[in-house]
Amino acid sequence: MIMPESIMPSLQDIQKAAERLNGVATRTPLLPSIILSEELGAQVFIKPENLQRVGAFKFRGAYNRLCQLSDTEKARGVVAFSSGNHAQGVALAAKLLDIHAIIVMPTDAPVMKRDNTLGYGAEVIEYDRETESREEIADAIAADRKSVVVSSFEDFDIITGQGTAGLEIMEQGQELGITFDQFFCPIGGGGLISGCATAIKGISPATEIYGIEPEGFDDVKRSLEMGSRQSNKQQAGSLCDALLSPSPGINTFPIMQKYLESVLTVNDDEALVAVKYAWDKLKLVVEPGGAVALAALLAGKVDVREKTICLLFSGGNVDAAIFELALGR
Amino acid sequence: MIMPESIMPSLQDIQKAAERLNGVATRTPLLPSIILSEELGAQVFIKPENLQRVGAFKFRGAYNRLCQLSDTEKARGVVAFSSGNHAQGVALAAKLLDIHAIIVMPTDAPVMKRDNTLGYGAEVIEYDRETESREEIADAIAADRKSVVVSSFEDFDIITGQGTAGLEIMEQGQELGITFDQFFCPIGGGGLISGCATAIKGISPATEIYGIEPEGFDDVKRSLEMGSRQSNKQQAGSLCDALLSPSPGINTFPIMQKYLESVLTVNDDEALVAVKYAWDKLKLVVEPGGAVALAALLAGKVDVREKTICLLFSGGNVDAAIFELALGR
Repeated sequence: MIMPESIMPSLQDIQKAAERLNGVATRTPLLPSIILSEELGAQVFIKPENLQRVGAFKFRGAYNRLCQLSDTEKARGVVAFSSGNHAQGVALAAKLLDIHAIIVMPTDAPVMKRDNTLGYGAEVIEYDRETESREEIADAIAADRKSVVVSSFEDFDIITGQGTAGLEIMEQGQELGITFDQFFCPIGGGGLISGCATAIKGISPATEIYGIEPEGFDDVKRSLEMGSRQSNKQQAGSLCDALLSPSPGINTFPIMQKYLESVLTVNDDEALVAVKYAWDKLKLVVEPGGAVALAALLAGKVDVREKTICLLFSGGNVDAAIFELALGR
Repeated sequence: MIMPESIMPSLQDIQKAAERLNGVATRTPLLPSIILSEELGAQVFIKPENLQRVGAFKFRGAYNRLCQLSDTEKARGVVAFSSGNHAQGVALAAKLLDIHAIIVMPTDAPVMKRDNTLGYGAEVIEYDRETESREEIADAIAADRKSVVVSSFEDFDIITGQGTAGLEIMEQGQELGITFDQFFCPIGGGGLISGCATAIKGISPATEIYGIEPEGFDDVKRSLEMGSRQSNKQQAGSLCDALLSPSPGINTFPIMQKYLESVLTVNDDEALVAVKYAWDKLKLVVEPGGAVALAALLAGKVDVREKTICLLFSGGNVDAAIFELALGR
């Protein structure tokens, strides 16, 4: 099922989202990395969305969605499901807009992510990732309360909100007089990369867009190869907890079909190597799922030599035990 | 002994240093922190010099010094002593300028700092911090080879090089339309804070400058109170290995006398709390000595409410064992 291009988000839609987020979301810097440039033989820039509010890009889309709800919708509260970063994004956006939020989170969600979600004032309901359907739980709550379900990647305003990270990359690159040959971005359900690709391709059609998924959760890679949406066999079992969406979004898949060069996969070991590299050499705290773009590059999965590239760190919310596992490598 | 003002570095001297470092040192971003602003009830900005080349501000001064050596001096090589960050700064600057560097490092220097110094191609000679004089060892090597000794904080070009961090803070603040009420900066020998204060006070005389030292190594605090240079009783015994200079510099002391509002002290526990906070909430990797400004603010040692403030992270080179000690808090 291909979404008609006429209803796909445009660069202008992302620019409008950026206006809504102006002064609310953090304009994260574009960091040139001399050490990574030497390591990869490329001119490397990092967009550190781990430095975004809630420690992940997810605040962008959540706020862009929630700020446009009607007063009636705001009064009824919102429901969302997420392993953690979308949970935190919705919880903080709801707090800032004075909206009650109920978040359905898996029992194996990182403790930091659950604690922060509670800390922003949201109500958390747990489910078992292997045996229960988070969609069904969220839908039941929403039906009962007539609440809006805030999708983590299917929604137009979520996609355009996440895309503001890509718009900033282009604006910040232009300030430096830089054109990017390649952009590398983690993929869960595809909201971030769809929005970013829309902004980047809208300004620089020649920039190649690469997505990165965890091994065993390569639904987007297989879907693009098959030409139709495929699902993952497993729902859990990777340290990249932020990237375990079961299949590409109905709305993000056609955007990814249109814009993505290809999708690379990395295993947990490679993700941990990247987490340690970011700590050791870049002095940035990145969670395993947030570091998969760096992981793919450090593992040499694509030729970047002599290129000007940007890679995005999507989040930095990681429990100490997992972080120490990375440092021990 | 007060240095005549006529030979103190000026704002213009720091601007000249910035020209030498343009395109060589990283222009680290000025990061607004919403979460820290809420925590402290202030408008908080961070200058993350842990994101500088070699993971610390020290590259600025080292390059500014070494790039001005004569060809004869360059050919004879340089000597420096340092527990690690200055070591790395001199080693990398020397590598870039094709100069042989010998670095005298204490046996208890962090492994990461020694390994990186070796990695940049420097020759490392170890000494015992408690029983040997690093100055004497370095002077003997320098006399033998007719080499320049690159001081970590006494030298004019070192001070002006470090001051470029302060100049950037003012330029980046001006771009945002911000005037800083207060600036918070770690103190070892005083090179960084002297240079930064010169730049900041040169542009904004009303900005208050606060220095932070580790408890038990508060030589600058006591020196300012006594009106003459005092020494620390101990030479080792703090996790803030970057800040254990025995006494204020002859050349930095009068600059600190002129510009500093006061000096605060923090203990190792408070420094570790700040290291963890930076990891947890800011997603930045900071070493204990690099985090003392944040430590002082989190411990409520000075009133910052309603103020617009900037704090500087001076470095992020920390061994995994110490980092995990912080995460375990």
